[in-house]
Amino acid sequence: MMALEGLRVLDLTRVLAGPYATMVLADLGADVIKVELPGVGDDARHYGPYVNGASAYFMSLNRNKRSITLNLKSPRGQQVFRELIPLMDVLVENFRPGTLDRLGLGYEALRELNPRLIYAASSGFGRSGPYSQRPAYDAIIQAMSGLMSITGAKDGEPTRVGTSVADITAGLFATIGILSALTARERTGRGQIVDVAMLDAVVAILENAVARYGVTGEVPRPQGNRHPSIVPFEPFDTQDGQLMVAAGNDVLWRKLCEVLGRPELAEDPRFSTNPLRDANYAELRPILAEVFRERSSVAWQALLEAAGVPVSPINTIAEVMKHPQVLARDMLVEIDHPVAGTITVPGIPVKLSETPGALRSAAPTLGEHTEALLSELLGYTPEQIAELHAEGAL
Amino acid sequence: MMALEGLRVLDLTRVLAGPYATMVLADLGADVIKVELPGVGDDARHYGPYVNGASAYFMSLNRNKRSITLNLKSPRGQQVFRELIPLMDVLVENFRPGTLDRLGLGYEALRELNPRLIYAASSGFGRSGPYSQRPAYDAIIQAMSGLMSITGAKDGEPTRVGTSVADITAGLFATIGILSALTARERTGRGQIVDVAMLDAVVAILENAVARYGVTGEVPRPQGNRHPSIVPFEPFDTQDGQLMVAAGNDVLWRKLCEVLGRPELAEDPRFSTNPLRDANYAELRPILAEVFRERSSVAWQALLEAAGVPVSPINTIAEVMKHPQVLARDMLVEIDHPVAGTITVPGIPVKLSETPGALRSAAPTLGEHTEALLSELLGYTPEQIAELHAEGAL
Repeated sequence: MMALEGLRVLDLTRVLAGPYATMVLADLGADVIKVELPGVGDDARHYGPYVNGASAYFMSLNRNKRSITLNLKSPRGQQVFRELIPLMDVLVENFRPGTLDRLGLGYEALRELNPRLIYAASSGFGRSGPYSQRPAYDAIIQAMSGLMSITGAKDGEPTRVGTSVADITAGLFATIGILSALTARERTGRGQIVDVAMLDAVVAILENAVARYGVTGEVPRPQGNRHPSIVPFEPFDTQDGQLMVAAGNDVLWRKLCEVLGRPELAEDPRFSTNPLRDANYAELRPILAEVFRERSSVAWQALLEAAGVPVSPINTIAEVMKHPQVLARDMLVEIDHPVAGTITVPGIPVKLSETPGALRSAAPTLGEHTEALLSELLGYTPEQIAELHAEGAL
Repeated sequence: MMALEGLRVLDLTRVLAGPYATMVLADLGADVIKVELPGVGDDARHYGPYVNGASAYFMSLNRNKRSITLNLKSPRGQQVFRELIPLMDVLVENFRPGTLDRLGLGYEALRELNPRLIYAASSGFGRSGPYSQRPAYDAIIQAMSGLMSITGAKDGEPTRVGTSVADITAGLFATIGILSALTARERTGRGQIVDVAMLDAVVAILENAVARYGVTGEVPRPQGNRHPSIVPFEPFDTQDGQLMVAAGNDVLWRKLCEVLGRPELAEDPRFSTNPLRDANYAELRPILAEVFRERSSVAWQALLEAAGVPVSPINTIAEVMKHPQVLARDMLVEIDHPVAGTITVPGIPVKLSETPGALRSAAPTLGEHTEALLSELLGYTPEQIAELHAEGAL
């Protein structure tokens, strides 16, 4: 059994935030039915790179889901949609707020059909507030939220995080909202709206930047790769590369000095405690930098690991895909796709001992399950389905 | 009613990943009881900056929780711990794997006391695999996971994300695991282990980098602030600052050209479609850059917003804290702390219409609720509690 087995999710989402949320639910066992526009589908199907014409971007986010095409602007498409609603536990959409209302398919209408329905909406700015109706992309939210202003080379240009963290954290908070609403429904018997905004999500992950600014009045700036107050806690150049080294306390500092063959540094009155190392960073950094340049990354890494000092190379994606811990944890999984063949996708980071998630199927082709689902869920005959096709509803 | 009201969580976590997970649960109504080492407490209590001696870092992560001190190395402390277990739905810890087992308080032992207990463990590398016992910090995981290798100035140095995304996404996946395990428990009646690793979490949010590398064989590099394939989708310098502009499709591109007073660019055969703009980027960029320098950020922003072109200044944290949408969504909340006075903390990004979360209390002082909890949950008398104090168990 999987944890979310039996949970039925109608998924109207496109591209990233919404599909990420429904992927997490599907990975843990939910039956996710992806509703796509006939002939076009999720915009992400048209994002490269492609394998035999199938988008790698789309495939990495939509495994474990089934696809049904449905034209929500056609009366018959809307009718099928309304017939599906009473069978669902959750509906997820990431349109701009109000889009479904204008089709007569907003929460108020759907609740009449299914009071237990959990209606989850993910958008750039949420369902309320002066920016609610504005368009947004991940890059806009990273800029607006302050995240870019604290990322980048030391006192350098604000920098966009190389993965779409605004979309993805919105997807994770939406997932948490859906599961919380399910817990509430156990007691109330009723569904509700889960409203998650990308801007809210990024503000919520600014860690201590908000509290720090509130207390000190100093506007946080890009901090580079060095820890703001712990020393040494930063990358060093070796003979042939770079290593991230994190001596997070005085015990690790002494171990580091041993490994570097410079035990006297641990006793040096300029460097014996972290506040002293921080204060005398300008003197300490060149000493350590010189020692690290004496050996290769592999050599230093082996010595530091043996001593228990946290260390890592700054891996490329190619190196991550061969990493023994990543492989041991099944965080890269090969999956067979009907069009693309075997492709590698990220695994499932939520490891449950008794009801583990699983990769059950590759991402669907557009409308792959339309006939099967209409027959299975609504009892439509092949003739009725052909008629809906002919009318442009599917 | 709040969504997670009635859910009892025993929280052994420190610093960030674990406390973030239990904060999300507490914000949505769970009763989170934070177990801290007598006299010392969560390491984060000793991270600056401070307000009247109270850590702003700690306060921003531990609102809505109660604190009890308990020495898990003392026999009487362990006894109290064992007495608490049958009353709990969830235990969360972020020790290195095996730490609680060595105290005789691992999952196998606790399950005997409470078969319904959900045991959630968050660690650097998880409970399995060759790296399981290694120490980790967020910076190590950002380096190891490949995230740094795709973040930074175009083809520049790998760059650490300015917030601890490895810790925070591990906390979010742990929260999802806990809520999923609760759903499973509704049917099975049994708890289980939720095992989340920071490394797994970051691999899971690499977006399409894994699939892209797998398909193209090209190792992704830091991409700077420009979208890899959409043009224009990047920051531009204005007369007095910088604006992120995202014309994500040809319709937005034509609107942008109108706003810039250069409608002929939209018809220019070099720039009329996105693939053409991408191919002729080197010619287009200087033309747009010159126009953007002609007005102030505020002026361009007003014009672009009116036309519906996604745009944002690259806000500092100071600007975010005054942002009308952030304020309208209650994403910055003032809270009264017994020692620090009024401080501002991030709000709750999971908005539930019927069972909304709430900020009910500031972060606790160390052991603030020890007496109250022992009396409320276990019926201890003041004399018994004084005795436990005297023995060093509390």
